[in-house]
Amino acid sequence: MGKENQFVSQIADIERDFPQWYTDVVLKTKLVDYGPVKGTMVIRPYGYAVWENIQREMDARFKAAGVENAYFPLLIPMSFMTKEAEHVEGFAPEVAVVTHAGGGKLEEPLVVRPTSETIIGHMMGKWVESWRDLPLRLNQWCNVMRWEKTTRPFLRTSEFLWQEGHSVYATGEEAEEETLRMLALYRDFAENVLCMPVLTGRKTEKEKFAGAVATYGMEAMMHDGKSLQSGTTHYMGQNFAKAFNIQYTGKDGALEYGYTMSYGVSTRLIGAIIMTHGDSRGLILPPPVAPVQVVIVPIAMKKEGVLEAANALKEELQKAGVRAKVDDTDNSPGWKFNEWEMKGVPLRVELGPRDIEAGKFVAVRRDETEKAEYARADAVKTVQTLLDLIKKSLFARAQSRMQSRTVTAASLDELLQGVEGGNFVRAGWCGERACEDRVKEFAQATARVIDEHHTEKVCICCGKPATHTVFFARAY
Amino acid sequence: MGKENQFVSQIADIERDFPQWYTDVVLKTKLVDYGPVKGTMVIRPYGYAVWENIQREMDARFKAAGVENAYFPLLIPMSFMTKEAEHVEGFAPEVAVVTHAGGGKLEEPLVVRPTSETIIGHMMGKWVESWRDLPLRLNQWCNVMRWEKTTRPFLRTSEFLWQEGHSVYATGEEAEEETLRMLALYRDFAENVLCMPVLTGRKTEKEKFAGAVATYGMEAMMHDGKSLQSGTTHYMGQNFAKAFNIQYTGKDGALEYGYTMSYGVSTRLIGAIIMTHGDSRGLILPPPVAPVQVVIVPIAMKKEGVLEAANALKEELQKAGVRAKVDDTDNSPGWKFNEWEMKGVPLRVELGPRDIEAGKFVAVRRDETEKAEYARADAVKTVQTLLDLIKKSLFARAQSRMQSRTVTAASLDELLQGVEGGNFVRAGWCGERACEDRVKEFAQATARVIDEHHTEKVCICCGKPATHTVFFARAY
Repeated sequence: MGKENQFVSQIADIERDFPQWYTDVVLKTKLVDYGPVKGTMVIRPYGYAVWENIQREMDARFKAAGVENAYFPLLIPMSFMTKEAEHVEGFAPEVAVVTHAGGGKLEEPLVVRPTSETIIGHMMGKWVESWRDLPLRLNQWCNVMRWEKTTRPFLRTSEFLWQEGHSVYATGEEAEEETLRMLALYRDFAENVLCMPVLTGRKTEKEKFAGAVATYGMEAMMHDGKSLQSGTTHYMGQNFAKAFNIQYTGKDGALEYGYTMSYGVSTRLIGAIIMTHGDSRGLILPPPVAPVQVVIVPIAMKKEGVLEAANALKEELQKAGVRAKVDDTDNSPGWKFNEWEMKGVPLRVELGPRDIEAGKFVAVRRDETEKAEYARADAVKTVQTLLDLIKKSLFARAQSRMQSRTVTAASLDELLQGVEGGNFVRAGWCGERACEDRVKEFAQATARVIDEHHTEKVCICCGKPATHTVFFARAY
Repeated sequence: MGKENQFVSQIADIERDFPQWYTDVVLKTKLVDYGPVKGTMVIRPYGYAVWENIQREMDARFKAAGVENAYFPLLIPMSFMTKEAEHVEGFAPEVAVVTHAGGGKLEEPLVVRPTSETIIGHMMGKWVESWRDLPLRLNQWCNVMRWEKTTRPFLRTSEFLWQEGHSVYATGEEAEEETLRMLALYRDFAENVLCMPVLTGRKTEKEKFAGAVATYGMEAMMHDGKSLQSGTTHYMGQNFAKAFNIQYTGKDGALEYGYTMSYGVSTRLIGAIIMTHGDSRGLILPPPVAPVQVVIVPIAMKKEGVLEAANALKEELQKAGVRAKVDDTDNSPGWKFNEWEMKGVPLRVELGPRDIEAGKFVAVRRDETEKAEYARADAVKTVQTLLDLIKKSLFARAQSRMQSRTVTAASLDELLQGVEGGNFVRAGWCGERACEDRVKEFAQATARVIDEHHTEKVCICCGKPATHTVFFARAY
């Protein structure tokens, strides 16, 4: 077996066994490992660096939008969970509960936060007094816990990292506007940072957040045509304001309840990147979040001046803000090429004695296979241009897949055929829960989001007039 | 009562009731609030912004030192805790325990991490195979939980935020070197970022971390002369490597246990800043971590051009990397002066129609009281210079306090008098636990760190020859 195949042979065939490909890739590239408790993950340095890049980019967008970060306690009194009826029904089955602490039994059990609407609602109820205190727009980066039966690293784990934004406004209109504004922020982030096209739209009643008036979702198409929910925003109306007494005195002196909303994305986004861009050779990381954007592989490394030239190029690139690295390990260049390909580094640079002499360097894009030569003198500009091209090409490729794999169905059989073929399927829906349940049963597909362009005339299930056109898909 | 006093009257007298001053200041400046569960805190945006600045500065130092970030699970199997005998003894009384999850009782109770030596040791045991894998140097930023009886925001809360670094080396010498190197990194950080002079040194056996061979501490003198442990580093020898089977194959092919070490600082540093620099008017935040470094207060704000000039100055400063803010609220200038003083903003700029016309601005340092006029044209340079002067002056002031309040005692009575007067007290010690316990009982003082300059001849307690000279103090 040739060197070229040593790495590829470690990972399952992406077309034949995508779930195994995913598991192989996340473990072998050292993004993540399994934790000792069932359903938990350890995010290893390579994976955590992706998360740090996501955090930095997302956090800057939040701050620019005027949102402030804070930190609320991990443990929530059980009694808080029951204050909003739908909320407790949705989350009670999957919470982890602290019953003992400090050597004794607690008077009231404490829930490890599955999400923080309740405890943040409680504090907002304490802080908000007058219309001058509004809007109050907070966000926290933290860990949350939801006890899941079937787990997979990044996609569904009992503990995960996320951000959760929570705002309270004086009026419902403002809170709804913020719910859509944050959905647009997520979409812009997905497209421009993760190079990931998404569908955005309102969720059906069945799929909405426990306690929300309306939930909006961002859905991305994975390599196998299944959908991954990648971010959600929720308009709560006065549900939580009433449960937690978030009241303010208006300009007219009257006491009013506020209107709240919340929004979140999680380490699941790392799973989304992997399954959107990966190929048979392993990961392909979008340049904006890749821990290493450019790996420089010295050729004939022991020859005088080669390593020095590689390091000089690295420093030049780093100075220009490019995350560059020299692989100066003892492995062969071929080994290095394959390893960094599997790890998804967007751009590989090769630099040997002949390149150095000729004032050139070789570069290979991870999303292509051809080598090309460039002038060493323009290295920084060239690398930046190539990274930008890779970014655009990753987005275009994923977008073309999503477009070509989105079909419209006129019958349940067509819908089934569509989702079995790895498509998003548009279909008319009457708005009844029974029909949504029937689609699930018949095609193992769920309503991902409601299409804002309502075109279908009849419900795919019951044949009655369609009130909505919905994107159905199988989903992670 | 004049406006000047409205804010000061909200906070207790710093000299007469320092604990109450602390509570007033942390709550009234909105750094923090009490959480609904006893002993928990909510870090509000103004406090969290300080933590973000601490994180950014510290994290950059870790990365420059070659340490990588990762994330390990919150919940630790109870059985892990018992694998290192001293460790479980030290932490068992204060852990919070998850006994139920996903609607049922767990087979094995899970501990909410009080620190992560055990779970990280377990994973390192899995990852480390050969000498090539060493050293392995990881860090995580996360929440931890220790159920404490007496709590105070930032200083001691059941949940707090921190970083914990964990490394495994092939040899004990290297692991010990890293333990001291990280202590030096903390010291540099305390001095140059927090403007906080510290004592560093080895802890006594009594005061060391549960499971360590040696613990080193960083101690800072607070306003009242008491000591606050502000960071610790621990050399573990092979204690955790043996408990968690962290073994590597050496260059000679033999299987060896690694040597581990760990280090941590927490949100307690925010408490340290408050109690080191604060004065009768409230907080004084060191410029490197102040969320707002310069507040610009427009004078006669309604006059044409004033607010525009204030905003123009703000943008000029922001562009130069200064965290500047304009207070354009409806409050009077006097109200604003006092509020921002209480909130500890290092530099206040006043800008009114006459200043604008004269091409000047007025600046007032938080650590002084005099106003001074400067040329508007040099604003950026002037502000940067003033912030740097404030930084140096805060450090010098705290250092001079620590120096003048460090005394050497020759008897237990002198030691008692020393700590009662708010001093750090150097004294000889024979090395026996009984004498250390006696000092605690007699003077309510503990051994903070061992002085590397051993000068004292006899033990302050038993009169036998002193093996160490120790800094004793009352401590938070």
